[in-house]
Amino acid sequence: MSSYDTNNIFAKILRGEIPSTKVYEDDVALAFMDVMPRGDGHVLVIPKEPARGILDMPPDALGPFMQRVQKVAAAAKAGMGADGLTLQQFNESAGGQVIFHLHFHVLPRWDGVPLRPHSGTMEKPEVLAANAEKIRAAFV
Amino acid sequence: MSSYDTNNIFAKILRGEIPSTKVYEDDVALAFMDVMPRGDGHVLVIPKEPARGILDMPPDALGPFMQRVQKVAAAAKAGMGADGLTLQQFNESAGGQVIFHLHFHVLPRWDGVPLRPHSGTMEKPEVLAANAEKIRAAFV
Repeated sequence: MSSYDTNNIFAKILRGEIPSTKVYEDDVALAFMDVMPRGDGHVLVIPKEPARGILDMPPDALGPFMQRVQKVAAAAKAGMGADGLTLQQFNESAGGQVIFHLHFHVLPRWDGVPLRPHSGTMEKPEVLAANAEKIRAAFV
Repeated sequence: MSSYDTNNIFAKILRGEIPSTKVYEDDVALAFMDVMPRGDGHVLVIPKEPARGILDMPPDALGPFMQRVQKVAAAAKAGMGADGLTLQQFNESAGGQVIFHLHFHVLPRWDGVPLRPHSGTMEKPEVLAANAEKIRAAFV
């Protein structure tokens, strides 16, 4: 198992060294808009725990973290008015991971609308902000 | 939120009415080989709880269930000698869900090997059995 790099981008976001468009934060997790969304309302949920991937998370920390993933997923679906949700979690480069801090992709989905390919194009900040606002308003 | 159909295929697998190639089972979860694998060693992990999707899982049940997902993921990666792991979880048809009992896809991944498309083709039982044996042997 590889080690945790404290200078990965999400560690910097957690420390406030890099900005993010937040939708949820507490002592366990942070959720923010993916800057290269594969669909409208694409959110990332990361634990505050410095875990590289799912296998590195202390088992006792999984429950509290996944409760936040569930909470964010519910708000993303409701806030975006979606028909469904796709969750993805990638581990190591072979598994699709690019940033080596554990994260769950929460993707609101609509009937007949495929995920967009990884384009490498940054979404407009005002679009991210508008979707984040919808999602934040949907937390119960 | 839609209701839980007690006659979905995974409910039948849990009741033993339909066979499956099991890799792990306890009081919380069952893991078995996907019969239409998108990669070698593709495993499904389902809770015994009758939850339709991630939003329907009682929050207190998420931790124990995700500990089983983590355990199965570790065994699948080690047993299959994989370089990484992809986890996927689909909710509602729009989100990619086909069987309406909560399940996590655990996909061992190798550098440079893409996931196979959904072919609709059943894998040979002897291939599923051989991969299940490798994964079962890797639980710690």
